[in-house]
Amino acid sequence: MSGSAYGNIFKISTFGESHGKALGVIIDGCPAGIELTAEDIQRDMDRRKPGSNKYGTKRQESDSIEILSGVFEGITTGTPIALMLMNTDQRSRDYSDICDIYRPGHADYCYDQKYGIRDYRGGGRSSARETSARVAAGAVARKLLKEVNIDVCAYTIAIGNVRAESIDIEKRFDNPLCMPDMNAYEKASALLDEAMKDCDSVGGIIECCVTGLPAGLGEPVFDKLDACISKAVMSMGATKGIEFGDGFKASESRGSYNNDNFYMSEGKVKKKTNHSGGVLGGMSDGGSLIFRAAFKPTPSIAKQQETVNKYGEEKQIRIKGRHDPIVVPRAVVVVEAMTAITLADLLLRNMSAKMDNVKKIYL
Amino acid sequence: MSGSAYGNIFKISTFGESHGKALGVIIDGCPAGIELTAEDIQRDMDRRKPGSNKYGTKRQESDSIEILSGVFEGITTGTPIALMLMNTDQRSRDYSDICDIYRPGHADYCYDQKYGIRDYRGGGRSSARETSARVAAGAVARKLLKEVNIDVCAYTIAIGNVRAESIDIEKRFDNPLCMPDMNAYEKASALLDEAMKDCDSVGGIIECCVTGLPAGLGEPVFDKLDACISKAVMSMGATKGIEFGDGFKASESRGSYNNDNFYMSEGKVKKKTNHSGGVLGGMSDGGSLIFRAAFKPTPSIAKQQETVNKYGEEKQIRIKGRHDPIVVPRAVVVVEAMTAITLADLLLRNMSAKMDNVKKIYL
Amino acid sequence: MSGSAYGNIFKISTFGESHGKALGVIIDGCPAGIELTAEDIQRDMDRRKPGSNKYGTKRQESDSIEILSGVFEGITTGTPIALMLMNTDQRSRDYSDICDIYRPGHADYCYDQKYGIRDYRGGGRSSARETSARVAAGAVARKLLKEVNIDVCAYTIAIGNVRAESIDIEKRFDNPLCMPDMNAYEKASALLDEAMKDCDSVGGIIECCVTGLPAGLGEPVFDKLDACISKAVMSMGATKGIEFGDGFKASESRGSYNNDNFYMSEGKVKKKTNHSGGVLGGMSDGGSLIFRAAFKPTPSIAKQQETVNKYGEEKQIRIKGRHDPIVVPRAVVVVEAMTAITLADLLLRNMSAKMDNVKKIYL
Amino acid sequence: MSGSAYGNIFKISTFGESHGKALGVIIDGCPAGIELTAEDIQRDMDRRKPGSNKYGTKRQESDSIEILSGVFEGITTGTPIALMLMNTDQRSRDYSDICDIYRPGHADYCYDQKYGIRDYRGGGRSSARETSARVAAGAVARKLLKEVNIDVCAYTIAIGNVRAESIDIEKRFDNPLCMPDMNAYEKASALLDEAMKDCDSVGGIIECCVTGLPAGLGEPVFDKLDACISKAVMSMGATKGIEFGDGFKASESRGSYNNDNFYMSEGKVKKKTNHSGGVLGGMSDGGSLIFRAAFKPTPSIAKQQETVNKYGEEKQIRIKGRHDPIVVPRAVVVVEAMTAITLADLLLRNMSAKMDNVKKIYL
Repeated sequence: MSGSAYGNIFKISTFGESHGKALGVIIDGCPAGIELTAEDIQRDMDRRKPGSNKYGTKRQESDSIEILSGVFEGITTGTPIALMLMNTDQRSRDYSDICDIYRPGHADYCYDQKYGIRDYRGGGRSSARETSARVAAGAVARKLLKEVNIDVCAYTIAIGNVRAESIDIEKRFDNPLCMPDMNAYEKASALLDEAMKDCDSVGGIIECCVTGLPAGLGEPVFDKLDACISKAVMSMGATKGIEFGDGFKASESRGSYNNDNFYMSEGKVKKKTNHSGGVLGGMSDGGSLIFRAAFKPTPSIAKQQETVNKYGEEKQIRIKGRHDPIVVPRAVVVVEAMTAITLADLLLRNMSAKMDNVKKIYL
Repeated sequence: MSGSAYGNIFKISTFGESHGKALGVIIDGCPAGIELTAEDIQRDMDRRKPGSNKYGTKRQESDSIEILSGVFEGITTGTPIALMLMNTDQRSRDYSDICDIYRPGHADYCYDQKYGIRDYRGGGRSSARETSARVAAGAVARKLLKEVNIDVCAYTIAIGNVRAESIDIEKRFDNPLCMPDMNAYEKASALLDEAMKDCDSVGGIIECCVTGLPAGLGEPVFDKLDACISKAVMSMGATKGIEFGDGFKASESRGSYNNDNFYMSEGKVKKKTNHSGGVLGGMSDGGSLIFRAAFKPTPSIAKQQETVNKYGEEKQIRIKGRHDPIVVPRAVVVVEAMTAITLADLLLRNMSAKMDNVKKIYL
Repeated sequence: MSGSAYGNIFKISTFGESHGKALGVIIDGCPAGIELTAEDIQRDMDRRKPGSNKYGTKRQESDSIEILSGVFEGITTGTPIALMLMNTDQRSRDYSDICDIYRPGHADYCYDQKYGIRDYRGGGRSSARETSARVAAGAVARKLLKEVNIDVCAYTIAIGNVRAESIDIEKRFDNPLCMPDMNAYEKASALLDEAMKDCDSVGGIIECCVTGLPAGLGEPVFDKLDACISKAVMSMGATKGIEFGDGFKASESRGSYNNDNFYMSEGKVKKKTNHSGGVLGGMSDGGSLIFRAAFKPTPSIAKQQETVNKYGEEKQIRIKGRHDPIVVPRAVVVVEAMTAITLADLLLRNMSAKMDNVKKIYL
Repeated sequence: MSGSAYGNIFKISTFGESHGKALGVIIDGCPAGIELTAEDIQRDMDRRKPGSNKYGTKRQESDSIEILSGVFEGITTGTPIALMLMNTDQRSRDYSDICDIYRPGHADYCYDQKYGIRDYRGGGRSSARETSARVAAGAVARKLLKEVNIDVCAYTIAIGNVRAESIDIEKRFDNPLCMPDMNAYEKASALLDEAMKDCDSVGGIIECCVTGLPAGLGEPVFDKLDACISKAVMSMGATKGIEFGDGFKASESRGSYNNDNFYMSEGKVKKKTNHSGGVLGGMSDGGSLIFRAAFKPTPSIAKQQETVNKYGEEKQIRIKGRHDPIVVPRAVVVVEAMTAITLADLLLRNMSAKMDNVKKIYL
């Protein structure tokens, strides 16, 4: 596979299947000298945890994170930080109903084609549970970023065709859908109830905003800030699109509107608008980084669907059990995690852009 | 910088500024035994070349590609393939008007912040001319993919608010905007004329379609097919968004609609629809890979804009010279190139997914 | 740190300190379809285990390996394989004697200079215990290599100035020093007893021989077979040199002697001699791969030494506790592990060297 | 191939065959703000150039380096630096004598086995001429290192069985063999004359010494300083071994002798001896970095040898033309280059080891 490692200096490597013994991540390249406790990480883990409301699966996961290495007396030492979650809720279920069948909208068929074998229990490696390792690593990246005053914050901007009309970021923790607009939350909630009644699911959109970025992060020409964030976020299950600043709407605008004019304010270069979403030429431009990611509806639905099994027989399937009718609210913290990990890496990579910086460290 | 290399097995490393001596690319990891001539590459170079119609800059670039290594008697040898373009049209212009000023919508300010120095001639490394190296490498990747019957094809699907309503791929070479719909071309053409009259520019959308992909390409969980393509395409200048299959619209649909049902046809697994855009769980699913990328309007416009210079003084600027009022038509072949390079790499990476494949080579 | 990951396709990432909660490794990129059990790995772990004879430390480590992911019903699935060892023998000792002092020949001073913090318990990350993760990963690589008939075998060729004079590989498991010559073992044993009496330690040399390699493994010009093996083996603690084939003696020979002449045997190209040690131009040449690595004496000795502490005070130190008077016998399996991991990676990388191979998989 | 790129932050990618159009290198990740001219590089190129004395091949190579990008007004800009050498002396010779035959001690057979095709003209990619790209990149790395007072210096310590007995580094440029001992030079010179008379060749040993390294460079546990240097140097053609500090002799010594004791001098931690060769636990320890690399005799000899051709026929061969009877003197600057490139990379990687350093740049 070899695709389970990510990053250049701040590097992560994840492992684990939905119903294996454990999931986890090794973070290699985290600078020494950062205060870090299991609680720092647990806070984010709990935001991803299912079972906390009626829109999440009922699986009880303790999701209790353990730091196995790389931290000594509460401080990172510069050596690899290993974080692990034991899988405690692996009931010995009967999987005979899905072990041979290819669920529509799922990775089952692709895994079989690629590897010739598949751990079908709970979706194996393609389960949303895989993202718990991302969230754990993201919490460490977040601590690093906080030390230089960078803040990453995501929220649900749309569920189905219900879109947040005002954005009051503080509100996002006041509702289980993580929306920054209580009005939109009420409507989205009704929409979800309806979908659940129909044994169906819906999609949505998450927006992420990063403040405090110094200008110049991102490494042209391939590892640009927006390119790296795109890869990071599009590597999450169920994402189908991403856009920065005005995004797809920029394709309909004119240059005279889309260009953000510069001006001076208190001796600093500022932009009058932020159509760019905080990125110019692939580098942070001093404005807030703003992007949105689109998520498809949860593929696991109880409604009857047509499909085939691995013996080439056409079959009908109703996916049993309680599944999230929407992945978006739980994905919010995963978007933050992937963003934080990517920014931590680009922050460290940018350190050697100038010889002046090199001298600042060594002379 | 260290961001000018891309790929894992099929690796490229590019160099060159707009007005430097030359631009080029080294391709490391191209398999031995592929027929390759300069003409194979020149064909794609010519599609990117400016000056061929009224919507492109008037700069005359010969863009004549030279193969410096890695090919012997018309066949790739497995050693690095170096491709180079000399810059012939570097008139010793006067750049005093832009050397200190930060053009809105451009990377000038970010480069200065990151590196403390900037080759301002023609935009230096952030010039669209940088993409010529991508196109050259893409042509080699395309040859590789053709050997296993994979085809990459992109076209302009929208210019400003004019969208192609029918898609007849053959038509795309019949008009300078690379649109697959002659009707839409007429309207888009009028839109561009109007923008040019206003000293302004417009954006657009490119769609790309890949056929012939075996199922299973893409390396979960971070190097997924869609994640890798997203990075590749979003690393091009002026891109502001990307989406696969139903993309952002999927966020408004329901699972029962969005899931593509499987069926059997002539002993093969097929999908009844392709809402996924050919990717499930981050791997190719046997359907055509379909994605769209949004481009912002060209930032270089003759209209007057407000900005600042590097001494912190507020200034007004009108960008002289003739600039493309739209980047989209010339970006079509660059989208194909980045897609082909990414797929070539994932194709080679996928070879070792199964021990059976390893034995097929060595036993 | 970011130096705890290794490999390109068959990638490993290790973690763990001597007295932390656990040590382990994630293997990303192991092909699917290989039979693998914890026993396969435990066999190698037991060869590295201390306490099995009078020349090893008395620490009781169960070193019981656990497979956390990537294996389903006894078969690798292509997803990351996580292997973990819990640290069970972390007695809450008093480390006040070494927490501030820089032990001569150890990494203490360098860790403090690099990171500004150091987990001093049992040497932290620089403990020989770190190699257990390498051995675990090596056992998996060994299984992979066996599938294509490649065999890796190392043994002690010298201890201090006692050198094996005959090599009977089968003998190496008949003595605790892993020597292929029982006569040499007797002498080496006496040498060690003497060193221990003097509260001192000795060094030695390990030889490694790999059979069954197809010709052509290794990736010129930087990732040559010998270059990669050198890095792998020289990354083990206490190694001070490595040489291939005739090695340093080749510097004293003439070309007419050193060149291995080719001849035909049963339709195959063979070499009359193997001065090269099985590598030409950085690729396997069809002969056995042979190399030797030199190890310095264990730096932990009970003899009194002069040193300084982190407050810049000169101090005297006698390192308490029982330490291995020699690291070589326990390092034999680590040399095999690093060699196997490197070869597994190069084997997979070599698959795409020829377009013919690519077609063999996809057409 | 994919093995022609090297480095993590300071990354190089090389290309070129002996008789192709050109050779060169792209350096990606060199910090902005370093003064750099073609002359800085040419100085090292000239040290590698053949034809300057009777022990070098008579090929006249101008080896005139050209900077194609990444430098603006004499200063590096942080963008990729491309350096190129045109091949001017590619006489259209007749290669029919070697195009099918496998020269003993050469890579011919391995290239054919790996790639199924081989550019046989002058050895293609396996020619020593390939190292010119390394030297060019090394000259840039050297400039970077000088900015923080790090100096890399190599010399010939042995030719055949003639070993330098005293080391006066200044002397190395006083003789064509690059020996730091004029007495040894006289003897080595006689030895070479004799070998040439016999149509034979000899090997030798190069020693390299680096001063000014801060303690703590090197990234445990795989990218240790000595591991990285080993890979870098062992990737040069003809190297058969490498050792640090006491090297292989350390295997015969005792811990009480081999450990370097620390002491204080003018408020700084110093070592009384340097048996370690300047590296402890894989990091620079504040002492001079010292290592030696063994080179085999030039494989191209005029003496008759037995071999086979690619049709499986046994053949006799005498390699025509004048070849260096020894590669060592010309390899001295290549050893320096590979060392400098490796150290530049480790220097930049080490910048993010501590959070304090990160804050020093960003707060």
